[in-house]
Amino acid sequence: MTAPDLSSLTASLPPGMVIVDPDILAAYRYDRANDPDAGTPLALVRTMTTEHVQTTVRWCAEAGIPLVTRGTGTSLSGGSTAVDGAVMLSTEKMRQLTIDTATRTAVSQPGMLNAEVKQAAADKGLWYPPDPSSFEICSIGGNVATNAGGLCCVKYGVTVDYVLGLQVVLADGRALRIGGKQLKDSAGLPLTKMFVGSEGLLGIITEVTLRLLPPQAPACTVVGAFPTVRAASEAVLAVTAKLRPAMLEFMDGVSINAVEDMLKTGLNREAGALLVAQSDAPGPAGEAEVALIEEAFRGCGGEDVFSTSDPAESEAFTVARRMAIPAVEKLGALLLEDVGVPLPALPDLIDAVKAIADENDVLISVIAHAGDGNTHPLIVHDPTDPDEVARANRAFGQIMDLAVSLGGTITGEHGVGRLKKGWLRDQVGDDVMDLMATIKQALDPQGLLNPGVMLG
Amino acid sequence: MTAPDLSSLTASLPPGMVIVDPDILAAYRYDRANDPDAGTPLALVRTMTTEHVQTTVRWCAEAGIPLVTRGTGTSLSGGSTAVDGAVMLSTEKMRQLTIDTATRTAVSQPGMLNAEVKQAAADKGLWYPPDPSSFEICSIGGNVATNAGGLCCVKYGVTVDYVLGLQVVLADGRALRIGGKQLKDSAGLPLTKMFVGSEGLLGIITEVTLRLLPPQAPACTVVGAFPTVRAASEAVLAVTAKLRPAMLEFMDGVSINAVEDMLKTGLNREAGALLVAQSDAPGPAGEAEVALIEEAFRGCGGEDVFSTSDPAESEAFTVARRMAIPAVEKLGALLLEDVGVPLPALPDLIDAVKAIADENDVLISVIAHAGDGNTHPLIVHDPTDPDEVARANRAFGQIMDLAVSLGGTITGEHGVGRLKKGWLRDQVGDDVMDLMATIKQALDPQGLLNPGVMLG
Ligand SMILES: Cc1cc2nc3c(=O)[nH]c(=O)nc-3n(C[C@H](O)[C@H](O)[C@H](O)COP(=O)(O)OP(=O)(O)OC[C@H]3O[C@@H](n4cnc5c(N)ncnc54)[C@H](O)[C@@H]3O)c2cc1C
Ligand SMILES: Cc1cc2nc3c(=O)[nH]c(=O)nc-3n(C[C@H](O)[C@H](O)[C@H](O)COP(=O)(O)OP(=O)(O)OC[C@H]3O[C@@H](n4cnc5c(N)ncnc54)[C@H](O)[C@@H]3O)c2cc1C
Repeated sequence: MTAPDLSSLTASLPPGMVIVDPDILAAYRYDRANDPDAGTPLALVRTMTTEHVQTTVRWCAEAGIPLVTRGTGTSLSGGSTAVDGAVMLSTEKMRQLTIDTATRTAVSQPGMLNAEVKQAAADKGLWYPPDPSSFEICSIGGNVATNAGGLCCVKYGVTVDYVLGLQVVLADGRALRIGGKQLKDSAGLPLTKMFVGSEGLLGIITEVTLRLLPPQAPACTVVGAFPTVRAASEAVLAVTAKLRPAMLEFMDGVSINAVEDMLKTGLNREAGALLVAQSDAPGPAGEAEVALIEEAFRGCGGEDVFSTSDPAESEAFTVARRMAIPAVEKLGALLLEDVGVPLPALPDLIDAVKAIADENDVLISVIAHAGDGNTHPLIVHDPTDPDEVARANRAFGQIMDLAVSLGGTITGEHGVGRLKKGWLRDQVGDDVMDLMATIKQALDPQGLLNPGVMLG
Repeated sequence: MTAPDLSSLTASLPPGMVIVDPDILAAYRYDRANDPDAGTPLALVRTMTTEHVQTTVRWCAEAGIPLVTRGTGTSLSGGSTAVDGAVMLSTEKMRQLTIDTATRTAVSQPGMLNAEVKQAAADKGLWYPPDPSSFEICSIGGNVATNAGGLCCVKYGVTVDYVLGLQVVLADGRALRIGGKQLKDSAGLPLTKMFVGSEGLLGIITEVTLRLLPPQAPACTVVGAFPTVRAASEAVLAVTAKLRPAMLEFMDGVSINAVEDMLKTGLNREAGALLVAQSDAPGPAGEAEVALIEEAFRGCGGEDVFSTSDPAESEAFTVARRMAIPAVEKLGALLLEDVGVPLPALPDLIDAVKAIADENDVLISVIAHAGDGNTHPLIVHDPTDPDEVARANRAFGQIMDLAVSLGGTITGEHGVGRLKKGWLRDQVGDDVMDLMATIKQALDPQGLLNPGVMLG
């Protein structure tokens, strides 16, 4: 088979935009899931405008060549892994951003980092809440495509709650504008919401209009160490039964120690688990919330419970939690879970994950956006040891089966990508799989957008 | 043409569930839009379970008979108006509801009223925020189908922000469960969000799982009278530039007087417009917000500005605003608009609506969920005067054209229904219309669900 002729694509885009240099292509094969089965793309296109995206998509549609969209490649589920012979469309150079204080909206091209959108909003006295732990390295387009969550979403919701409008290039190359700067819009089918979290299967997002809020009130942080993961997860329920915290994060002993090795924050290395909570209720209401959180922590066996409203100290604990994935990554290769359950099932989920670790003789560190029942069991393994890889893979599947059996989800925020699609049917059932396939087929009949992700 | 034989449908449902009595059918022809072109249905089916809905949908699919779903018929855009020869499926007897305090969710059949869901949640110390003015008479299923808004959504969002899961019967009769009680779920295409606001075109909602919040903190209400609608709408911008109120409602002089005639609340009949705002920030933060609102009101010419934290007094103003539509309805037949614009365009929108009223020599009363730019110009007319009807209809179209020209929407919360579909294409464009039709075609190839609504 001869490689397809790229010359017509190259000719219709600005010079240098279509890249075939194998060394550069190599850097675009993997995302942060490090799937060993990543393919080798045909070419990389770093588009700068919606028109470039349209040109690329039309060329692919005509040539029948698959197209993988890539933001900054921080996917933990293999969503932006390369496919053999595909065009990789990178949005990293799509970096226009404007903040409109009158409508309190941000209009951004997809390649801006989440942190850059946050900062630009903050510079105008506004706040873009969604805060995935990867906020300094992930693109806003990737956030919209995966409906990213984060630390504050226990109180402030996830990406979809902030998307007012989109520009999307469909599989046939047409560019659509849906929604806009108006805060409420019931005109027609809810297409905007349909694209958020669709993992690039239905179209390529080339512009997003985001709702911004007035700045968050200063938060007070409460930290508690717990003898066991069970005690900490019960404290999560005790807190959420009383109030709606602005953050409620969980780290187990393994991740505490991994983060301590890296950051030397002074976390309690002996603890079985750590909870980091925040209240941003103002004044006496906030003080009352902090008191309730402390009481809930202590009531469930929390030790060294303390609170701080010093921003630097608060930030140190948030950073510790955010760095958990990179820190645990230093212990070995990771298989990253993202399972979620209805909150009351959280203690059982975490206990059972630890049992799965024992049964398969692998190390599993559990961190969690605990306040919304979303956990990240990190399965640490040595990728050069085939037996350990096999045990890790078995644990990976067992944890998703467990979440489904507890009435939960195989992915709370990272998306299905390529790595979790084997379990999607077990969660949602045949009819829902059918409906998803029907919609995919209607919007992308050739199946060229992100093949292998989620479905098929 | 002979009427279709209903015997197989009647035989497969409990006795009495299929109704053909013309007197009863007559009561199901109109919704609150009172469309004079309402059709006469073939039969009414008051289902009680998902299985009944499946049976009815399968029978319609086989017989090629259209089906119109009806909650409690409070649609203001003709969404639940009967169609000649169609089966009307009423959800009014689908009234199971459970509140789960552990997961903070409500699981409700579609026929419960919004007010009943709110009350059941309140009985367990929880809060279901969405509060359309019609909350005491509209169904939760209708709210989900239209993505209903309301008074508190300026701060707390609209229905879609609270829908975690759905059971839906598709056009081929299959019943699907999507989403669930978990707060975050990224498993697969975002189908739950796709059905919310789809106006019954894609499936029939037979169960909803709703997120509940801790109770709202006691609110303080600020009221101000303004000499002109312009002054009041500028005060809206002055408020939202400083904070995010929990309510920010607008009534013009016509509606003030209509409500006064009905309720005798003691509103200022001389005022050009009235604003009713709320802050529910606790303690000193709330006091600060109230002071900022008062200052913004006075700065824009507000008179008699005062605030109250007395719940009964607060409620009296909220009721006054909620009763505006029924009160203005006493002045004549209404054509109900629901146009929205990005907030900075609000003063221009309201001024231009008043100009359209003058130009067409019809009375238009404007009320608004002003804080999110969503207005309801109510076009009052005498339905027995053909010339006035023609002028009212012309104004109806002109107002939607105006909203589109200001970058806004023809409907902020009521949905397109049958009455606004002539303007949808102008707002969204040909390609978006195409995409909506593609999705409708994929999910309901026979086009039997709610024919004539939104599309086609
Ligand atoms: C250390 C670490 C911590 C993390 N923490 C969190 C967290 O707290 N919460 C969370 O939700 N995620 C988290 N993630 C996962 C990841 O950062 C998110 O999924 C993020 O949204 C991906 O953005 P990206 O730009 O890297 O997208 P990519 O990885 O490049 O792509 C992700 C998916 O989106 C598609 N896509 C990207 N851009 C577009 C576009 N413009 N149009 C259409 N489709 C597109 C891709 O095809 C792919 O399927 C974390 C990752 C890391 C490495
Ligand atoms: C005085 C007054 C004030 C109002 N104020 C507001 C307001 O503040 N905010 C607001 O958003 N609306 C408001 N409305 C409009 C109306 O109440 C809402 O649109 C409400 O959501 C409709 O609910 P319903 O049960 O009456 O639905 P219906 O009128 O019966 O149906 C509305 C649409 O939804 C579809 N539908 C209903 N149930 C289902 C189901 N189970 N599955 C699938 N499709 C279904 C119908 O086919 C129809 O297209 C007001 C109405 C009145 C009369």
